[in-house]
Amino acid sequence: MALSAPTSYSSTDAEVRFQLPAGTQSGQPAGITGTRLVSGPGAGIDLIELCSGLLKVWIVPTRGMGIWRAELNGIPVEWKSPVRQLVHPKLVNLQARNGLGWLDGFSELVCRCGLAFNGPPETDSGAKSPIESEVTLHGRIANIPAHSVEARIEGDLLVCEGRIAESTLFGPQLELKTRVELPLGGTAFEVVDEVTNLGSGATELELLYHINVGRPFLDEGAKVAIPHRQVVPRDPRAAEGIDSYPTYLGPTAGYAEQAYFYEPIADAGGRTIALLRNAAGDRGFSVEFSPAELPRFITWKCTQPEADGYVTGLEPATNLPNPKSFERQQGRVISLPSGQTYRSSFRIRIDDTANGVREVESRIAAIQGSIAPTIHRTPQKGWSPSGG
Amino acid sequence: MALSAPTSYSSTDAEVRFQLPAGTQSGQPAGITGTRLVSGPGAGIDLIELCSGLLKVWIVPTRGMGIWRAELNGIPVEWKSPVRQLVHPKLVNLQARNGLGWLDGFSELVCRCGLAFNGPPETDSGAKSPIESEVTLHGRIANIPAHSVEARIEGDLLVCEGRIAESTLFGPQLELKTRVELPLGGTAFEVVDEVTNLGSGATELELLYHINVGRPFLDEGAKVAIPHRQVVPRDPRAAEGIDSYPTYLGPTAGYAEQAYFYEPIADAGGRTIALLRNAAGDRGFSVEFSPAELPRFITWKCTQPEADGYVTGLEPATNLPNPKSFERQQGRVISLPSGQTYRSSFRIRIDDTANGVREVESRIAAIQGSIAPTIHRTPQKGWSPSGG
Amino acid sequence: MALSAPTSYSSTDAEVRFQLPAGTQSGQPAGITGTRLVSGPGAGIDLIELCSGLLKVWIVPTRGMGIWRAELNGIPVEWKSPVRQLVHPKLVNLQARNGLGWLDGFSELVCRCGLAFNGPPETDSGAKSPIESEVTLHGRIANIPAHSVEARIEGDLLVCEGRIAESTLFGPQLELKTRVELPLGGTAFEVVDEVTNLGSGATELELLYHINVGRPFLDEGAKVAIPHRQVVPRDPRAAEGIDSYPTYLGPTAGYAEQAYFYEPIADAGGRTIALLRNAAGDRGFSVEFSPAELPRFITWKCTQPEADGYVTGLEPATNLPNPKSFERQQGRVISLPSGQTYRSSFRIRIDDTANGVREVESRIAAIQGSIAPTIHRTPQKGWSPSGG
Repeated sequence: MALSAPTSYSSTDAEVRFQLPAGTQSGQPAGITGTRLVSGPGAGIDLIELCSGLLKVWIVPTRGMGIWRAELNGIPVEWKSPVRQLVHPKLVNLQARNGLGWLDGFSELVCRCGLAFNGPPETDSGAKSPIESEVTLHGRIANIPAHSVEARIEGDLLVCEGRIAESTLFGPQLELKTRVELPLGGTAFEVVDEVTNLGSGATELELLYHINVGRPFLDEGAKVAIPHRQVVPRDPRAAEGIDSYPTYLGPTAGYAEQAYFYEPIADAGGRTIALLRNAAGDRGFSVEFSPAELPRFITWKCTQPEADGYVTGLEPATNLPNPKSFERQQGRVISLPSGQTYRSSFRIRIDDTANGVREVESRIAAIQGSIAPTIHRTPQKGWSPSGG
Repeated sequence: MALSAPTSYSSTDAEVRFQLPAGTQSGQPAGITGTRLVSGPGAGIDLIELCSGLLKVWIVPTRGMGIWRAELNGIPVEWKSPVRQLVHPKLVNLQARNGLGWLDGFSELVCRCGLAFNGPPETDSGAKSPIESEVTLHGRIANIPAHSVEARIEGDLLVCEGRIAESTLFGPQLELKTRVELPLGGTAFEVVDEVTNLGSGATELELLYHINVGRPFLDEGAKVAIPHRQVVPRDPRAAEGIDSYPTYLGPTAGYAEQAYFYEPIADAGGRTIALLRNAAGDRGFSVEFSPAELPRFITWKCTQPEADGYVTGLEPATNLPNPKSFERQQGRVISLPSGQTYRSSFRIRIDDTANGVREVESRIAAIQGSIAPTIHRTPQKGWSPSGG
Repeated sequence: MALSAPTSYSSTDAEVRFQLPAGTQSGQPAGITGTRLVSGPGAGIDLIELCSGLLKVWIVPTRGMGIWRAELNGIPVEWKSPVRQLVHPKLVNLQARNGLGWLDGFSELVCRCGLAFNGPPETDSGAKSPIESEVTLHGRIANIPAHSVEARIEGDLLVCEGRIAESTLFGPQLELKTRVELPLGGTAFEVVDEVTNLGSGATELELLYHINVGRPFLDEGAKVAIPHRQVVPRDPRAAEGIDSYPTYLGPTAGYAEQAYFYEPIADAGGRTIALLRNAAGDRGFSVEFSPAELPRFITWKCTQPEADGYVTGLEPATNLPNPKSFERQQGRVISLPSGQTYRSSFRIRIDDTANGVREVESRIAAIQGSIAPTIHRTPQKGWSPSGG
């Protein structure tokens, strides 16, 4: 399946670049396409489309190498954010809205939260200096344009790489190198991230993957599953729904978000898998990852009306999305030594058949095995500020 | 007068787009031209010029479909802002300058203030959440790039349309759809706005048209007129000048702005008209609107020295430009139900002859009729915080 | 040496403009080249390279006509900032990081601090209004794109000019006009700045040239010299190092910055010269200026590890980089009358031979003559808040 004449997209190319389909796999021509948006709030955004022949994945270098959306045989893999356009980071003021300005640009399928901090805005009393103490919602990485972006075909893999510098003088110097791999003919893609501390001293790292999905994977009666030892409601609001924590409502007027924090279980190979499947069980969206790299997992239930963004988040993370000062107290903020790299990866798989969904469910059941998860009915000490 | 071969400008076209003159009306070729600024603080701004043959109007999609300036037979219809270049929204930090950063980009003939809020910066104690409570001067709409922009010729109308999304997750979702119409051969243009609440619940709306004019319409002895029942000075500073509220000084060193709030009177058709005319009475700038849509009218007198921006504002609005929390208490903040659209429109007419000016003056006098306006000499309760 | 066919670069040209080498001087072709960065955090930045044949100088119109770096016969004249890319001002939020957001874009060889203010963030209690009271680190000028940029050859000079508007409604209206001159075949370039107050009343001005140099001019044992009457440590930290104020450490873990404030001495022609030379004495970076224009001089010693930005700043200035309110009390904030222009200039010379370095040292010694400088061992009253 390897192609004889790999071609590539590079950020040093001219302004609007594209590549002819690199081969024909099935259904549609496989290949890589680069585009630059020219108007609206997204003007200047670069988009790279990888198409396996079956699965298309759109990467947004300009928004921190986030993944805007995907599409499998015409099935949209996305959510409908009230932020209806891709918004260029230049128009997103993270400080605005009392530190919640990040919400003004949030519309992706995969959006990284970090790197120096994530979680809600606060003044971090444990920060080294005023350069680091101002914490805005979910951090800076999703709103920094990538550099050294390149997409190419390696054997039978479509690959897109880029680097993002979250760096300042007298402050953290974190560089994210990310690589997206989509096999030709594949219906799953892998994201491999390496965050390196380029500074001379240790620096802090928080990384959460805000992976957001709506219809047709989310609907009334949809379910989320992940092998887990414990699950904890974040706050009293989440505690209200603890009896139905793995199932979803349809779009519900007046619904306020609920978040659940999981301790995942890994298989013998160190991997685990989270699945969102629709009520009918014929649409599945799954995220596979290694709890050794990403020891926390969060479900964000946000089944508000369609117009407001009917969505759920499946979120593997190094920490819980609490205030950074709280996470530091719990020992969940990584201290990354000078020159060291923190590696994390995840794999997103899309299923459009009941058989495919059952296969993932079987795998989850096998990892869960006979372990009965502890379901905490109230917020727990050390898990969130609500837990005391 | 209709053209046989309408052509169009669309935001999905290539980066710099233009259209050959679509016809020749008189004086100069009529048509539509699109440009993108490539350097300076305006780099990336799209400008659309509509030319009727007599009147040119420049629309700025990138600055919220504001109208930068117009020109009638070589007469500039504009003001000379200290902000001498068009500034891209990406360089305007609304939070900066203690919430007055909006002033760093303010230079247009027509600039919308809104949509979720306008007026001075405050922390809005009546807001639903921290997402909405941070109020910066005159709101966000003027600094959001429009999308779905299109200009075209419809029969004998030059038309330019665009949409602006003032939208966020967990917050207001207001979409402005605006349409500018300039008849071929015309010396007046119409702006029709429709603001739709795309969210699932009711949301608040404040909309004020900051329409700003300098020479040659404004000069020493220039006058402003509008049919009105009442006029109220905003504050003690405005009260100082109440005896001469309809007339203007020349450029005056040390002048501090004065604002007057009017209750306009409509004619039988529901329309009213405000006129700014120069001392000689041969230059007229008028704004026609419907008080049913825009029940407030404000004059902003700012006859400071030329270098600082010698200007006056004629401002039809849904509310008065007081702090939003004050306006809410007075019942002047619109609550727009889910899916509903608020429509407002105005028409700007330029006159370069004494006859034209007299025609508008006659119309104003006719609407005023025998109604003697109440001229309040001091700020009034409910009209502004100064009124108690 | 004058060229017969001068060509020019203008900001009204098309998006990516360049000029063929205008002549061949020596070593490499002399000429002017214009580029626009198309991706990463610098997307949209214009860069102008002047090449004398020996010395290359890169000017960044989009970052306030700062000078990114230079290169003499392949020797880099620069520092390695942790901000590894040129960052477009649109991505720099001066308010962020508790008013220290300026650091997120700081990587140039020559970066202006000003114009309305420089120094650390504060709320300036002496400001005229809320429009001016919010002071962020080192001011706005380095993050405003220049307009009216032009590069051309005048006789045997390579010239680049541009204007930057630091201007707002109801606030300061300062326009910087800057001109860079590099003689064909030269190893030194001159920068001439004119700041004009375009407003109708007097306005305040603070201007500091943050000129930043690393290897190979800075190394262990490198020295800085300038003819001076007095030198004062800024704070207790600088006082710790007063015995070695003119010499530099190598990269030092845990090093915290030290700043020294000088009263320079001028020669009979009114000029003075500051030199940074390496330990071996065969690399010299010097800044010549007029204390009548720029009466203060600061050395910023920042010999932290390479990874964090091993650098020193040589900083001629109109004021000391203290809080603006403090500087105003000391009478060091310029009040620029309406219509008046403040002129300042400096000349940067690069030496890559011991002879060249000795020539500059001799000149400094000659200006210093028999004057023994007063070396204050502690912060002094009136020089910095630490001095009381």
